[in-house]
Amino acid sequence: MIEPQRALAQVRTSVQSELTVFLSMQTQFLGEIGSELAPVAQAMSAYLLDSGKRLRPLFAYAGYLGAGATEDKAVIKAVASLELLQACALIHDDLMDGSDTRRGKPAMHRQFENIHKEEGLSGSASAYGASAAILLGDLALVWSDQMFHSAGLKQDALVRSLKVHDEMRVELMAGQFLDIHEQALATSSVARSLKIARYKSGKYTIERPLHFGASLAIEDRITREALTSIYSEFGLPLGEAFQLRDDVLGVFGDPSTTGKPAGDDLREGKRTVLMAMTRERANSTQEKIIAQYFGAQNLDSVGIEALQAIITETGARQHVEDLIEKLTLTAQDALNRDEIDSSAHALLDELTSIAVRRSA
Amino acid sequence: MIEPQRALAQVRTSVQSELTVFLSMQTQFLGEIGSELAPVAQAMSAYLLDSGKRLRPLFAYAGYLGAGATEDKAVIKAVASLELLQACALIHDDLMDGSDTRRGKPAMHRQFENIHKEEGLSGSASAYGASAAILLGDLALVWSDQMFHSAGLKQDALVRSLKVHDEMRVELMAGQFLDIHEQALATSSVARSLKIARYKSGKYTIERPLHFGASLAIEDRITREALTSIYSEFGLPLGEAFQLRDDVLGVFGDPSTTGKPAGDDLREGKRTVLMAMTRERANSTQEKIIAQYFGAQNLDSVGIEALQAIITETGARQHVEDLIEKLTLTAQDALNRDEIDSSAHALLDELTSIAVRRSA
Repeated sequence: MIEPQRALAQVRTSVQSELTVFLSMQTQFLGEIGSELAPVAQAMSAYLLDSGKRLRPLFAYAGYLGAGATEDKAVIKAVASLELLQACALIHDDLMDGSDTRRGKPAMHRQFENIHKEEGLSGSASAYGASAAILLGDLALVWSDQMFHSAGLKQDALVRSLKVHDEMRVELMAGQFLDIHEQALATSSVARSLKIARYKSGKYTIERPLHFGASLAIEDRITREALTSIYSEFGLPLGEAFQLRDDVLGVFGDPSTTGKPAGDDLREGKRTVLMAMTRERANSTQEKIIAQYFGAQNLDSVGIEALQAIITETGARQHVEDLIEKLTLTAQDALNRDEIDSSAHALLDELTSIAVRRSA
Repeated sequence: MIEPQRALAQVRTSVQSELTVFLSMQTQFLGEIGSELAPVAQAMSAYLLDSGKRLRPLFAYAGYLGAGATEDKAVIKAVASLELLQACALIHDDLMDGSDTRRGKPAMHRQFENIHKEEGLSGSASAYGASAAILLGDLALVWSDQMFHSAGLKQDALVRSLKVHDEMRVELMAGQFLDIHEQALATSSVARSLKIARYKSGKYTIERPLHFGASLAIEDRITREALTSIYSEFGLPLGEAFQLRDDVLGVFGDPSTTGKPAGDDLREGKRTVLMAMTRERANSTQEKIIAQYFGAQNLDSVGIEALQAIITETGARQHVEDLIEKLTLTAQDALNRDEIDSSAHALLDELTSIAVRRSA
């Protein structure tokens, strides 16, 4: 068995290389339509190639290896396409949330707002930035399809995998809608926030990529469904743990590793499970402070620290940590099942610890 | 040969029925995720089922019949999926343009803005409307894929058609970006506006759906490419004529048939070919009036009539009419080629006149 971190690094390098080739072909295609599209190609390439943990391609590839399948360049390309889907989700998400930064750089709508200003274009710079972000997100979604479809997969594997791929994307969009709807409700709820975390993030980041990998690998329906169900036993709790870790990092994370300003989730008033648990536990004095600071656009370090203190003092932070621990153990139990080929164990172990580790 | 209008009505009815079935299945799927998604399913179903000319499915089906293929329920379902792609384009387009209405009803972002107000939700109603429109557009795009993939096509036909389907969508997004970029430029250009019309509308509405239909029908590459090239000879000029007609209707159209308020394109300051031609021809007095009224958010009937008069007086309107006529004749010439099976002639003739007719 190869060393876990080396297995991971190898897949990441291959994913990076496939994305580079695909984006360079698409840059050429856009260039043939018009030179006005150069900033689009450039922004998208930088967005995809400069960073990213590649979690979804990695889980999908692990899902493929776990089915006992052998390494395959076409499969790498197919799973790499999930990064383009994720780019769509992030670009649209940042626009909807009004987030200024992503991975330490300006969010896509801000990038095009800046281009508008620098080039002295006419009309509203922020409207131009918003429109560009909508279209670049759409383009990323279409490109992800194109990269998947043109990966060079065997015809059977391609057709078989379209279904889970489509379902995953419907669930993602449904989860995103639940999220913006939740933000507009007057009350918070742990149960509702958990469901959003499951659809918007857990299923889409872990369970569904594993299913996608299994469907790329296994022709026989019964065998495929058996593995798929074990992947759910592993992926659903781990996906929830992953989202809960994200909640904690959104409040307590170090900006230099999260790539987001400190307390960003608090400023945005994000209805996370962590916050729902805090509000459930808060006394009336604490609730008043939450009402004052949570979601305040001009939230400064004083407000951030006050909220952080309440999240800790109510015990919500510890409760979420305990829950992450418990969910992770449940997930790890499923990993030991015989149906998962041993060649995937190193990768899945390493990915588990990345998904729930204490820094971004 | 059956009567053209009956052929058209038959395909429209089948498309409507397939969309109804698909949307009802998806409504159920969303309902299983959460009751909060009921407004999403409802808004999308009304958007898709209440109206729409079904131009893209019709051209695609004509493209399929023109290849000499026989009627097929799976193909109807596959081409009907193009209506969902179009829904994505329209929902996002209206949001980017800040249009209030679509087909005589509130645009999608306005519908969800209204839901926010009626239900007394928290936060900004317009931000909620914008986020919902982004996500419903994304969902429509994913649903269009899902409907196409699950149409029950023969595996070969499905896999073969993915390529042109993906290219069509990349071109659409590229054309949309060219359009928003054009709006932000200080100068107008007939050449640039023609290119936008070609990518954003012409190729996507007519040429590419025809190609899609041909690829669903023809296995042999050489035969397919021969027909594809004739479809381009027909579809590209007709697509341009279609967009030019849209330009004219956007300025002179009757609101009761266009489903948009009078002079909407003028109020939005839309950089159409018609406007570029007007500005090329305008004298300095006319240009001053254009500068005063074109794109003015509070544009009233006085301003609309002043602009309409200039568009007519400069000869731009007549020039565009002549161009539509010329492009239509070029397209019709290609229709007589032997390679197009006669079973498609009635449908293609009827679609040609719909695409360029003088009312919406």
